[in-house]
Amino acid sequence: MNHPMNYKISDKFVGMKPSAIREIFKSLGTPGAISFSGGNPAPDSFPVKEFAAISAEILEKNPVAALQYSVTEGYPKLRELVADRLKTHFNIGAADDTTIITTGGQQAIELTCKVLCNEGDVVIAENPSFIGALNAFRSCGAKLVGVELEDDGISLEGLEAALKANPNTKMIYLIPTFQNPGGITTSLEKRKAVYELARKYDTLIFEDNPYGELRFAGEEVPTIKSMDTDGRVIYGGSFSKVLSAGMRIGFLCANEALVAKIVVAKQVEDVHTNIFFQMICAEYLSRYDMDTHIEEIRALYRHKAQLMLSCLEKELPSCVKFTKPEGGIFLWCTLPDGLDMNAFVKAAVAEKVFVVPGTAFNCDQDAPSQSFRLNYSMPSDDDIVKGTAILGRIIKDMLAKA
Amino acid sequence: MNHPMNYKISDKFVGMKPSAIREIFKSLGTPGAISFSGGNPAPDSFPVKEFAAISAEILEKNPVAALQYSVTEGYPKLRELVADRLKTHFNIGAADDTTIITTGGQQAIELTCKVLCNEGDVVIAENPSFIGALNAFRSCGAKLVGVELEDDGISLEGLEAALKANPNTKMIYLIPTFQNPGGITTSLEKRKAVYELARKYDTLIFEDNPYGELRFAGEEVPTIKSMDTDGRVIYGGSFSKVLSAGMRIGFLCANEALVAKIVVAKQVEDVHTNIFFQMICAEYLSRYDMDTHIEEIRALYRHKAQLMLSCLEKELPSCVKFTKPEGGIFLWCTLPDGLDMNAFVKAAVAEKVFVVPGTAFNCDQDAPSQSFRLNYSMPSDDDIVKGTAILGRIIKDMLAKA
Repeated sequence: MNHPMNYKISDKFVGMKPSAIREIFKSLGTPGAISFSGGNPAPDSFPVKEFAAISAEILEKNPVAALQYSVTEGYPKLRELVADRLKTHFNIGAADDTTIITTGGQQAIELTCKVLCNEGDVVIAENPSFIGALNAFRSCGAKLVGVELEDDGISLEGLEAALKANPNTKMIYLIPTFQNPGGITTSLEKRKAVYELARKYDTLIFEDNPYGELRFAGEEVPTIKSMDTDGRVIYGGSFSKVLSAGMRIGFLCANEALVAKIVVAKQVEDVHTNIFFQMICAEYLSRYDMDTHIEEIRALYRHKAQLMLSCLEKELPSCVKFTKPEGGIFLWCTLPDGLDMNAFVKAAVAEKVFVVPGTAFNCDQDAPSQSFRLNYSMPSDDDIVKGTAILGRIIKDMLAKA
Repeated sequence: MNHPMNYKISDKFVGMKPSAIREIFKSLGTPGAISFSGGNPAPDSFPVKEFAAISAEILEKNPVAALQYSVTEGYPKLRELVADRLKTHFNIGAADDTTIITTGGQQAIELTCKVLCNEGDVVIAENPSFIGALNAFRSCGAKLVGVELEDDGISLEGLEAALKANPNTKMIYLIPTFQNPGGITTSLEKRKAVYELARKYDTLIFEDNPYGELRFAGEEVPTIKSMDTDGRVIYGGSFSKVLSAGMRIGFLCANEALVAKIVVAKQVEDVHTNIFFQMICAEYLSRYDMDTHIEEIRALYRHKAQLMLSCLEKELPSCVKFTKPEGGIFLWCTLPDGLDMNAFVKAAVAEKVFVVPGTAFNCDQDAPSQSFRLNYSMPSDDDIVKGTAILGRIIKDMLAKA
C-alpha cells in the first residue's frame, strides 16, 4: 500500500468484539468436533418437505411478488397470521398493538434499543443474558446494568435498586421463558412484580421470547406482554427455533406509536426482510399444523435435554451445579470455586468439545464467571454422551490437581 | 389504556420520517395507478425458472445448510464468486480487501456509516442523493453535507470547500454510475479528482454501485475503487437490480481491517443474511451465464429508457429539463422556476401517476427543489406512454395558469 490507512472507528464500535459464540461457530468445521456451543435448532426440526412444496408453488404461481421489493413492515398475510398466533397462544395483542416482521429476532432487539436509547441511556438486563442482545445494546451506546438472575428469574431487589440508581433507564431486557444462557423460567409472581416495577419507575420492558413455544416439562407461564395494559412491553419473537434459523425471520409486537419509529429504523437497515421466506412462512402457517410440528420439536428436545441431564448427573462430580430447564435449548453449568472456568473451556476445546464460557454472557465484560453454557438441541445423542464424558473427565482431572 | 405511554424516542430517531418513496410504495395498490416512483427492477428481469430449479435442488440435496444458522460474513462460495466478479468486471479487490454479504446494498451503507461516525461527524454526499443512504446517515447521527451534482458528477470546487470546512468528515458517499436520483455518471477525470481530494483531506469514500452493471449506452467508466491504492474506498453493490430485489442480497468490498468492524456491526443487526438465498445466488452465478442475463436486462432498460425519453420529448414543454441516462433505472426532471414542484406532484398523484418529489433526495430536508424523479424500469410500456402524457398535460395546465 502506498499510504496505509489508519481507520478512525466510531467510539461505539472501536471496542466492540465479535460474539464469542459466532467466533466459536467458525471452528465447528474441525473434524470430530463436538459442539455444545451454538444456539442452533436441531437439523431434524426443519420442515424441509413442506418448504420445498411451498417454494415450488410460489415460484410457479406468484414469482414476481416473491422476488420484488416489498413493504418494510412485512408481508401483510404473515403479519396477520403471527398476530393471530400471538393472540391465541400467548394472549398477546392490545387494540393499539401492531406486529411487524424483522430480520430474525436479533433485529427486533437492536431496532428497539436504537429508537429508544441515546448514548449513555441505561438498559437493565438479567445477568447473565443473551450475548447478541447485550452486544446490540452496546452498539447503540447504551449502558448495560446487569441484575442477578435467580432460580425463578431476575432478582426483584436487584432490579428495584438498579431502577432507583438509574433514572435514565430506557428498558428492562428480559428472556423470561427458558432464558439464554440460564435455561431458567421466571415465575408468574416475578413477572407480575417486574411489570409493576416497570410501571413504578416508568420504563419499558423488552420481552424476548424466542424459545417460548419449546416447553417440554412443567406448566405454561403467561407472558409479561399478556399483562400489559399500558403499552409498556415490547414483545420479540422468532421462527428461528421452530421453522428455520437460516431464513432470518422474526417479529415484534408493540404499541403502534412505538412501532412506527421502529419501522423507520428498519427501513434504513435493510428496507425489508426477505419476502420469499415471509411468504413461505405465511403459507406454512396457513396450510400445516404448526402446533403438531412444534409438539414434535418439543418431544425431540425433551429427549435431548433428559439425555444431557442424565449424562451430566453421571459424569460430573456433584460439586458442579447445573440448571434443569423445562424447555428451550440451553442449560447452565457452574464450577465450584477454585476451579478455573477459562482453563476448563480451553481444555475442552483442546479435546474438540466446544462450550461457551460464562464470561461471554456477562453485562460487565470484565467480570469473572464460574459458569459455562451447554446446548442440547444441536448435538447428536452420541455426541451428548461422548462430549459430557469428556467434560466430566476434564473437571475430575482439574479437581485432582487443585 | 390505564396509563397511556409517552414514548421517549432517542434523539436520532425522534425527527426521522419514513422514506417518502417507501410511503408512496404503499399507495401503489390503487387500481389504475401508474408508478414512476419506485426503484423496482422490471418484473421480467427475475430469473424465475433458474431460481425454481436451484431452490428445488438445494432443498432436496442440502436442506440443512440452507435452513440452519450460518456465518455473519456470508456464504463462503458466494463471497468468492462475488469477489471474482468484482475483479474480472470492475478491476476491484486489492490483496488486503475482502468481500462480505449484506442484507441488501442498504445494509452495507448503514453498517459502514455506523462503524465510522460518531454523532456529529460529517458525511458528504452528492446533492441530490439516494434517500435510503441519506436516512441511514441521519439514523447514525451523522451530519449530512450536500455538494452540488453537476452533469458530469459532483462539483469538485464544492467538494473541496466541504472537505476544508469539515475536518471531521468521515466519508464521501457517492453513486458515480447512473446516480440515484440524477441518472448521471461521473466522468473518469472527476473520479480521479475525487479520489485525490479524499487523499488530500484523508477521508474515506463509499462508492455505491447498485446500477453499475446496467449500462445500455456510452462507454464503461472505471470504478473509483479500481483506483484505490490506499484502502480508502468502500465499495457497495447489490443483486437487487440484476437478480431479485426482494431477496435482499448485497455485498461490500473494502480493506479487511475495516470490514472486521463492519462484520461485528452486522452480527448485532441480523446475525447473517438469509442463507438459502445466498446459496441460490452462488449456484446461479456458477451455473448460468450472468453476463448474458444482464445483457437481456440492459436491452430491456435501453428500450424502456428510450421510450420514456421520446415520450418526455413529445409530451413535456421544452422549459422542462431532464437527464439522459446511459444506464440504470432513473431519470431526473426539473421544472422551470415559477412552477410549484410540490403542487405538480400532488396533481399527478390525484391523477394516479406517482413520481417522487426532488425534496426527498435533498441532504437538507428543508431545502426546496424544482425537480422530480422518474423510474422507467418498472412501469409497462403502456404506462410509460399514458403516464408521461398525463404529466405533460398537468405541467401545461400549470404553465397556462402561471
